[in-house]
Amino acid sequence: MINMTLDEGREALMSLQRKMAAYDHAAGLIYYDGCTTAPKATAENRGATLSILSEEMYRLAASEETAELLEFLDANKEDLSYDERRMVHLLLKDIREMKKIPMDEYIAYQELMVKADDVWHDAKEQSDFEMFRPYLEQLVAAKKRFAKYVAPEKDVYDYCLNEYEEGLTMEACDSFFGRLRSEIVPLLKKVSEAPQIDDSLRHGFFPEDRQEELSYWLMELIGLDLGHVGLSTTEHPFTTSLGSHFDERITTHYFEDDFACSMYSVVHEGGHALYDTGSADELAYTVLDGGVAMSIHESQSRFYENLIGRSRAFCTYVFPKLAELFPEHMAGRDAEEFYRAVNKAEPSLIRTESDELTYCLHIMVRYELEKRIMHDELEVKDLPEEWNRMYKEYLGIDVPDDKHGVLQDSHWASGLMGYFPSYALGNAYGAQFLAKMKESVDVDGCIAKGDFGPVNDWNRENIWKHGARYTPAELLRRVLGAEFDPGYYIDYLKNKFSEVYGL
Amino acid sequence: MINMTLDEGREALMSLQRKMAAYDHAAGLIYYDGCTTAPKATAENRGATLSILSEEMYRLAASEETAELLEFLDANKEDLSYDERRMVHLLLKDIREMKKIPMDEYIAYQELMVKADDVWHDAKEQSDFEMFRPYLEQLVAAKKRFAKYVAPEKDVYDYCLNEYEEGLTMEACDSFFGRLRSEIVPLLKKVSEAPQIDDSLRHGFFPEDRQEELSYWLMELIGLDLGHVGLSTTEHPFTTSLGSHFDERITTHYFEDDFACSMYSVVHEGGHALYDTGSADELAYTVLDGGVAMSIHESQSRFYENLIGRSRAFCTYVFPKLAELFPEHMAGRDAEEFYRAVNKAEPSLIRTESDELTYCLHIMVRYELEKRIMHDELEVKDLPEEWNRMYKEYLGIDVPDDKHGVLQDSHWASGLMGYFPSYALGNAYGAQFLAKMKESVDVDGCIAKGDFGPVNDWNRENIWKHGARYTPAELLRRVLGAEFDPGYYIDYLKNKFSEVYGL
Repeated sequence: MINMTLDEGREALMSLQRKMAAYDHAAGLIYYDGCTTAPKATAENRGATLSILSEEMYRLAASEETAELLEFLDANKEDLSYDERRMVHLLLKDIREMKKIPMDEYIAYQELMVKADDVWHDAKEQSDFEMFRPYLEQLVAAKKRFAKYVAPEKDVYDYCLNEYEEGLTMEACDSFFGRLRSEIVPLLKKVSEAPQIDDSLRHGFFPEDRQEELSYWLMELIGLDLGHVGLSTTEHPFTTSLGSHFDERITTHYFEDDFACSMYSVVHEGGHALYDTGSADELAYTVLDGGVAMSIHESQSRFYENLIGRSRAFCTYVFPKLAELFPEHMAGRDAEEFYRAVNKAEPSLIRTESDELTYCLHIMVRYELEKRIMHDELEVKDLPEEWNRMYKEYLGIDVPDDKHGVLQDSHWASGLMGYFPSYALGNAYGAQFLAKMKESVDVDGCIAKGDFGPVNDWNRENIWKHGARYTPAELLRRVLGAEFDPGYYIDYLKNKFSEVYGL
Repeated sequence: MINMTLDEGREALMSLQRKMAAYDHAAGLIYYDGCTTAPKATAENRGATLSILSEEMYRLAASEETAELLEFLDANKEDLSYDERRMVHLLLKDIREMKKIPMDEYIAYQELMVKADDVWHDAKEQSDFEMFRPYLEQLVAAKKRFAKYVAPEKDVYDYCLNEYEEGLTMEACDSFFGRLRSEIVPLLKKVSEAPQIDDSLRHGFFPEDRQEELSYWLMELIGLDLGHVGLSTTEHPFTTSLGSHFDERITTHYFEDDFACSMYSVVHEGGHALYDTGSADELAYTVLDGGVAMSIHESQSRFYENLIGRSRAFCTYVFPKLAELFPEHMAGRDAEEFYRAVNKAEPSLIRTESDELTYCLHIMVRYELEKRIMHDELEVKDLPEEWNRMYKEYLGIDVPDDKHGVLQDSHWASGLMGYFPSYALGNAYGAQFLAKMKESVDVDGCIAKGDFGPVNDWNRENIWKHGARYTPAELLRRVLGAEFDPGYYIDYLKNKFSEVYGL
């Protein structure tokens, strides 16, 4: 039995989380440095340090001492504050799960993930699914076993979904994706038949230093505090908090032939950073700091990138800045042409490069395939064929090879089964948030003036400041005063693309 | 009594050092990030993480467990390899010292250092020595007490010198500085009376991106492996290893009105980086990795910066690159003018901006003052007056205020008493190394062709690869086959400046 008073236990809980935050800071910075500044032949050296830090991080998260502390606090939860109970719940969840998995299988799985990710890189490079297949088979088999150990009462794919969004079910996803598919596939068909948009405004030569100036201008415009949010360049854009929401980094990638790529990366990652840095300050250095679940995070990043960033109001406000930065290229063009150029929709092969309208179809393919794999209705060896068949069915396009098909994403190689749906849900949550926001905020009016204050205040008050205090479902109920309804997102897409394409 | 076999102890020794290296990597990167990339309002967040990592670093270095392990190995040292014995010696030294200092005094001293450094920044800003005086008095008093605790048999200032260079004595420094002073002061007087060099070649407008191109060109020229050595910009240039010599970073600061500042920073820091990255690979992740003592480190950085970098051969090789990068500015000028411009000598107020000839005089002032303070022959309150008097005597200049005088360096505020001499010794060691190298290498001939191979091979074989295997004194004996002799350095300065100034 643990030998401490409840107050000592509460102090130990805070101290544990401060330590975890410090190690997250160190490990996160080493990763970030590797993507941004580090000399190119230093990966092995980072690996040596990370493996030592991970040992301590694992000990902090899962040692007998930590488990005893958390179980002790959990046994006295009626005397804890709401936030403390939530911290204990989140920290205990992983430990309890981990304890149900035999240690040797857990370790073997960690090693498998590292190896699988390694092999996936080569397999993708060589567009050779067969090379990756045995690893994916083992990952899938492990996931199925883990589901039985941890949640024998649950459907195996429900277990997977729950890993990334507490409370999410297959039933909810089926209903969501079902409605989405029945509306978007016909809409996309109509869009494909309409005259295509001329997006030549995006293309030309846009020097990197000018694009960087645009990045900082956009960061300030959308309301990021540059004292706490930094910008760097990386191969693939991402956002990370270092230690707490007091130090946030976003990254972008400049393509000198298309300024809109980096521009919308900055606004997307900027949305993640607004959410993170909007956490109430008292949540810093706890597991409640910085937002809950991938889906809510994507709801914010895609809110700024698409719902705001691809709106006519935003494009109208931004265009003069583009004209100032790229005067020759923008001569004779106008905001309306810019708006249309960044709202061009077209079926494509690669999820991460797809447009707002087709994005969810990419996710749906993955969702359906994962579900069938986990339910033994599809074998891993048949994945490429099914992938290609579904891309033809959903998006109407032919997949030329596995590199541009089933091997394109890193997620499965990292054991992330059940993760993809949160991307699509995030889009839909965002649309419903926007509808709710418009009940009290003149969103387009503010954005047209470049005033993000009222929009950010609403998000901060309703979403950001709560960090991970509420589950995604609870948060949605509190914000919306209603259940999640994909109808808002569907309406948004239909209205927008009907208008843009004159359907 | 410790419960392990000798082989287990040896494995534990390596494991301990790997852990120390990992934490050094993390803490070093957090510091580096703060100087280079971090958003400006994030220092407090870094402080929170560093204080947690420091606890673990302190535990690794000084816990009872570590002490027991090292004492056990030390008791069996005849069965250890030479390298293992040296590791144990270096690791034990600090622990044994620390144990002699009462814990409460040790902690109070750590806190005093943080506070003193803080106050020093403000005091310097406001040029107000009185503000800093009480802190310096306490630091000096603590150092005197620590000397008595740790090495009661030693002179108090010998104790200070030994903290930064094992085996260095006041007797050796007195003899070194005495000779130096008797030769350099008259030489500087003659230089001051000769017609001054026109260094307008350094001054003009040199865009940062061109200077950056020069930096990378120089890094490759002097033989740095860019796969393992990175370059960033900071307020003050420095060099740091992250985790091991496999990841090295140097920094510079660009002044657009004088390209030579950054140019020689890059070559200076590049010298440190050559030394660090030249450690034998098997020393990585041990305390023997990356070089021994500040003085030997400075001998390498100043070797590349001055002995090589300000030689006629180097200037001749580099000038065409300058003409290519800054064609308008260099039109009508030549390598000889460049050589003369970067060898201008002139008494000045600030040590870090001083030239090769006057540099040691700045150090001598500090050495004499430290010695008198530690021997109770001078009171802290009288430091500014004495500082100013000695600058007039040694350098012939008037100090206008304490900001440009006694408050200019951060060292004393960080408790670094006895550290300055190593800068001067480094210069002199370098000159003797060069003389020795010239017995077997055509240094000027190689450099004139831009071929650093033979020079670097000699340094690697004789100095770099040994890391911290030998004390500075042992290393000098091994390399030189003779005792240290400041005559080489004095001859070098006399020959060079007589020639440059036509004396």
